[in-house]
Amino acid sequence: MLKPQVAKELKAIVGSNWLLDTPEDCLAYSYDATPLYQSMPDGVVMPGTVEEVAAIVKVCAREGIKIVSRGSGSNLSAGTVPVEGGLVVVLTRMNQIVEIDSDNLTATFEPGVITAHLHREVEKLGLFYPPDPGSMNVSTLGGNIAECAGGLRGLKYGVTKDYIMGLQAVLPNGEILRTGGKSAKDVAGYDLTKLLVGSEGTLAVITEATAKLIPLPESKRTMLASFRDLTGSARAVSRIIAERIIPATMEFLDNGTIRVVEDFARIGLPVDMGAILMIEQDGPESVVERDIQRMADICRKEGAVEVSVANSPEEGAKLMQARRFALSALARISPTTILEDATVPRARLAEMVEQVNVIAKKYGVNICTFGHAGDGNLHPTCMTDERDKEEIHRVEQAFEEIFLAAIKLGGTITGEHGVGMAKMNYLSLKVGETGIEVMKSLKQAIDPQNIMNPGKLFAKDTRRRVVIGGGAAAEQSVSHQHGNGCECNEHTAG
Amino acid sequence: MLKPQVAKELKAIVGSNWLLDTPEDCLAYSYDATPLYQSMPDGVVMPGTVEEVAAIVKVCAREGIKIVSRGSGSNLSAGTVPVEGGLVVVLTRMNQIVEIDSDNLTATFEPGVITAHLHREVEKLGLFYPPDPGSMNVSTLGGNIAECAGGLRGLKYGVTKDYIMGLQAVLPNGEILRTGGKSAKDVAGYDLTKLLVGSEGTLAVITEATAKLIPLPESKRTMLASFRDLTGSARAVSRIIAERIIPATMEFLDNGTIRVVEDFARIGLPVDMGAILMIEQDGPESVVERDIQRMADICRKEGAVEVSVANSPEEGAKLMQARRFALSALARISPTTILEDATVPRARLAEMVEQVNVIAKKYGVNICTFGHAGDGNLHPTCMTDERDKEEIHRVEQAFEEIFLAAIKLGGTITGEHGVGMAKMNYLSLKVGETGIEVMKSLKQAIDPQNIMNPGKLFAKDTRRRVVIGGGAAAEQSVSHQHGNGCECNEHTAG
Repeated sequence: MLKPQVAKELKAIVGSNWLLDTPEDCLAYSYDATPLYQSMPDGVVMPGTVEEVAAIVKVCAREGIKIVSRGSGSNLSAGTVPVEGGLVVVLTRMNQIVEIDSDNLTATFEPGVITAHLHREVEKLGLFYPPDPGSMNVSTLGGNIAECAGGLRGLKYGVTKDYIMGLQAVLPNGEILRTGGKSAKDVAGYDLTKLLVGSEGTLAVITEATAKLIPLPESKRTMLASFRDLTGSARAVSRIIAERIIPATMEFLDNGTIRVVEDFARIGLPVDMGAILMIEQDGPESVVERDIQRMADICRKEGAVEVSVANSPEEGAKLMQARRFALSALARISPTTILEDATVPRARLAEMVEQVNVIAKKYGVNICTFGHAGDGNLHPTCMTDERDKEEIHRVEQAFEEIFLAAIKLGGTITGEHGVGMAKMNYLSLKVGETGIEVMKSLKQAIDPQNIMNPGKLFAKDTRRRVVIGGGAAAEQSVSHQHGNGCECNEHTAG
Repeated sequence: MLKPQVAKELKAIVGSNWLLDTPEDCLAYSYDATPLYQSMPDGVVMPGTVEEVAAIVKVCAREGIKIVSRGSGSNLSAGTVPVEGGLVVVLTRMNQIVEIDSDNLTATFEPGVITAHLHREVEKLGLFYPPDPGSMNVSTLGGNIAECAGGLRGLKYGVTKDYIMGLQAVLPNGEILRTGGKSAKDVAGYDLTKLLVGSEGTLAVITEATAKLIPLPESKRTMLASFRDLTGSARAVSRIIAERIIPATMEFLDNGTIRVVEDFARIGLPVDMGAILMIEQDGPESVVERDIQRMADICRKEGAVEVSVANSPEEGAKLMQARRFALSALARISPTTILEDATVPRARLAEMVEQVNVIAKKYGVNICTFGHAGDGNLHPTCMTDERDKEEIHRVEQAFEEIFLAAIKLGGTITGEHGVGMAKMNYLSLKVGETGIEVMKSLKQAIDPQNIMNPGKLFAKDTRRRVVIGGGAAAEQSVSHQHGNGCECNEHTAG
């Protein structure tokens, strides 16, 4: 609970409507889209301006109150669960696009703008903001920045950090920091912009951002190739890249995912196939046409049983929709769905999927895999039931082995979801003890009181190799059910 | 001077051939490509492996010896001048391309590889590493990374930080850090890779890097448009972007530069024109053809007196060569040439160049401007004589006003050269006192002893607005003459 004096002060800053401090009101901010994690905050505040954010942070700094900033809470790493209580700062009221600058090809916006809203607004002007996390219809750009969200277009266009050029953020001492700006080239000191992107709310509260835009591609085509086995599809992916074609998206669904998606969406996917690739190319029409034909030829040569090219943008959108349905479809079939994002260099894709299957079998758990074949960003997804403690334990062991396998193949524990609490016990696998020490020293330098999103990124004991959900969150009394179809529509992951 | 015991220890690490500690040997490492700065090191060491670098740094950490790591020293911010003495660690022996991975489209290399060498090697395989600083024929990739080098292709392709995916670096305590890797998506903790890129040797010694490659564009064409006045050319630049065309390069030369370049290179530039634009587009042939025609039309509409399109790649290369000659040509006409890189959002280009001219006139100094019109990265270049203290004082006042003007137009004090010593008194103009404090806290966190490239980035007193060369370097007794044509061929800036 907030001290009455603090609650009064916060109300004076934001207006009494925008401070919630009853348990009923706080409940909705005790979890995010990550299964197995929940923790109650002491209060929830909804500022409307950067000045209000700064004033709130100053109060928290003085009182030693922990701060968890968040937008829609669609993240999948428990990054916005207030595991040490404190104040949740919800930024959804700060939802204005401040400017779309067509001359300099930039957009400046507040953190609460919904990702897809920015897409639509810039596309009206013939411009393009490529990052497209699966949650883009509900996620906020502030959350995308905090997590460095990826998406389907990462292969060709990169991820959130490749587009954010400047930030305004409130530091843990309440000071307002401005980084970068509209200059494409800017080497004035350390790149604080890129340090804040992906820092998961542990260093500052982002209150405004300026992003690079690019011209909207003139046309787009979609194709689908079905393979009897996984390795054929992986060979096709490698061959396409080897032929120096970089498609806009190159998505992969394994047999398990195909079946579940088809059962859900009834769009005629080939349920007896080992894998399908959904490929999109965009750009000038002649180039798109040529690339699609070349990729179709490559897929056939590498053993595709069927290759179909969408005849219209609508048909293409419908095919890609199948991919975007994947999590929702998988989530329908069990009470709890755990979506991971182990990532490998793209040439190791087939090896990684095969290892996921071996590991799933070893632990007797049900894992389907889909994801971004072009950039090696896989989503092994486990259908389970969090009430079955014994099974959850096996799931956690399986995922630990999956992360280790990704690292051994030269990959990483998380491609686009972030570390949060879900991966903090595995971070040292990727960055080593030296990397952890450097990261901790940066955190300590900027947030010496440790008030910004504490209990994230760094395991209490980095030697611990413990299971997901075995931490402080698991000790919380309120159980957060996740995985029903309705909710998952909102949380479809990238 | 190094203590005999330390010299002995260093010799034992690298072999006695690779430690230089006589004043004659050290002299060549007392300056870089920046006029007005020089300072003698106590010793120069040339390690051949990361293990040797780590061992050297451990000795320095124990003894409190300052470390300045460098490659070819072609930087223009005095970033590699050993202003506090100590040990210069020269990384040119570590010059191997470790791997070009065609499947994952990455290159892994040691820091001493020459930039243009990597270009050639990857292009043989149909791949492309876009960053092309003007110094690319002599600069090392390690130096490019330390400075976050830009270049002519920044507009379309971005700068060094957009390509570096992973690093190996030796921390100030001698530990070896590995960051990132070959995964295009990787959000495992803070982005230490991007923090080290552009950190100017103040945080770690970079010992290996992995860079993203892209497919080599299939074709390229070059055009030249001459304008009677500056504003016409700036309007054309804005119009091209407004038409959603992003050319590979869009270079700008003002009248003063045109005259000097023509006098030097005799390639038939129109010496009576107010400005010329040199534009290159690359990509699939049909798209290049279309874009070049559209840009030619736009230039004519915006008042270009003449537009010529190169008929062959050789003719195109010759035109672009004129742009690459710019600094060498300017450097011929006076003993000292000071090349700056004030940068503005591209829509403010004409305003900025006009202000440069007004400021140059006000202080009675000779400044020509050329640069990267597409990304607003200008190179106002002053022809002066460092022996004329009174004139140098006016030059410094003029540049201070130029930096202020860039900031007022929403730009930055340095687009691609870095802060080093040359800009440290102006850094707070761009990042504010809050930005400076955050950057200092990061430096303190990673390098608490302040042994990595001390005396750079941060002015001793950030309120000071003093002149270039007024710092410790100016007190050094050895004078470094710069600006003769011969030397400048090596230092042609981006």
